[in-house]
Amino acid sequence: MTDTLLETAPLAIDDAAADRIFRHARSTSLWTTDEVTDARLEAAWDLAKLGPTAMNTLPLRLLVVRSPEAKQRLSAHMAEGNKPKVEAAPVSLVLAADPAFHEHLDELFPVYPGIREQLAPATDVREQMARKNALLQAGYLIVALRAVGLATGPMDGMDADGIDGEFFADSGWKSLLVVNVGIADGEGSSHPRGKRLGFEQVAEIL
Amino acid sequence: MTDTLLETAPLAIDDAAADRIFRHARSTSLWTTDEVTDARLEAAWDLAKLGPTAMNTLPLRLLVVRSPEAKQRLSAHMAEGNKPKVEAAPVSLVLAADPAFHEHLDELFPVYPGIREQLAPATDVREQMARKNALLQAGYLIVALRAVGLATGPMDGMDADGIDGEFFADSGWKSLLVVNVGIADGEGSSHPRGKRLGFEQVAEIL
Repeated sequence: MTDTLLETAPLAIDDAAADRIFRHARSTSLWTTDEVTDARLEAAWDLAKLGPTAMNTLPLRLLVVRSPEAKQRLSAHMAEGNKPKVEAAPVSLVLAADPAFHEHLDELFPVYPGIREQLAPATDVREQMARKNALLQAGYLIVALRAVGLATGPMDGMDADGIDGEFFADSGWKSLLVVNVGIADGEGSSHPRGKRLGFEQVAEIL
Repeated sequence: MTDTLLETAPLAIDDAAADRIFRHARSTSLWTTDEVTDARLEAAWDLAKLGPTAMNTLPLRLLVVRSPEAKQRLSAHMAEGNKPKVEAAPVSLVLAADPAFHEHLDELFPVYPGIREQLAPATDVREQMARKNALLQAGYLIVALRAVGLATGPMDGMDADGIDGEFFADSGWKSLLVVNVGIADGEGSSHPRGKRLGFEQVAEIL
């Protein structure tokens, strides 16, 4: 097969953008003292929210942990090696899935009237849908945070149930990841990039 | 808090790139006859593979379904409304999680020697890690496909176990989503965009 488009224009975005969101972007754990404002987080959300989810469910929720007191509460539930990372970051975002996403579906997915009522009793289905689609959205959000000029440090090493008990006892949100956010402080702020699997290692063609 | 950076430069990528990957990008189900080459899919993978995963596990795998015969095999396991979408798309990608990702960790995560052996007997843990991180990567990939000029049509309505039995009996991959890929055929190729939840609806600030 020929792909003349690919020969003339391998990317549909400019190199600076591809560098910013993927090629030069690195997970970070050393930060400048620059503040991360809610306005900047909102700018990232305003991009990420546009990414597709099943039935426009949009189940991702964000706990923005900025105050020293909230940082301490979060840090208590992180794996040992991640505690200092939470404490050092300008902001830590707890990315969570909201199993009560169905309450918004009259507005978000009006083409399917009654879906809110249909999902209401299906607690397990809702939690599964929430986790799946919120993780997709977490991928969009990491890209979007980079697109507004922030670096990220995503972390999985944490006691998710502990975080849920600490912060989400009322809302029922389910924590998925914690992502530190800020401006990277120079070259030493990330490890050398690990190897990646090539297309031929991950793809099967039929 | 002030954010002078935000006032002068709300985005760190140019508007054309933000439009391409988020603001003008739409889920699509009408396609031009342009071919989607493996080279173009590889260009997307070469961006998406750079996104972060826990311990650099990179568990996302891609089944590239292009031949009419393979399309028929896939279509048989899709929800009724998605069958014609699979048949119409130039390429359908089955995005899957590989629970055997640990076999690559000596190469991908050499800073933790022994992690491959440690994970080998932990089948359930591996499957959970694979699903979680592959979904994050699915988010990166949808953005990356757009970044190389393709439109996407992600679909969740399918018999995942049926697909796994049909295609992944040997590899053990677990299907997560099917994403149709191609060049969108004009304005009528997508529905009007659904509403989105604003930052104030999804974020709690501490």
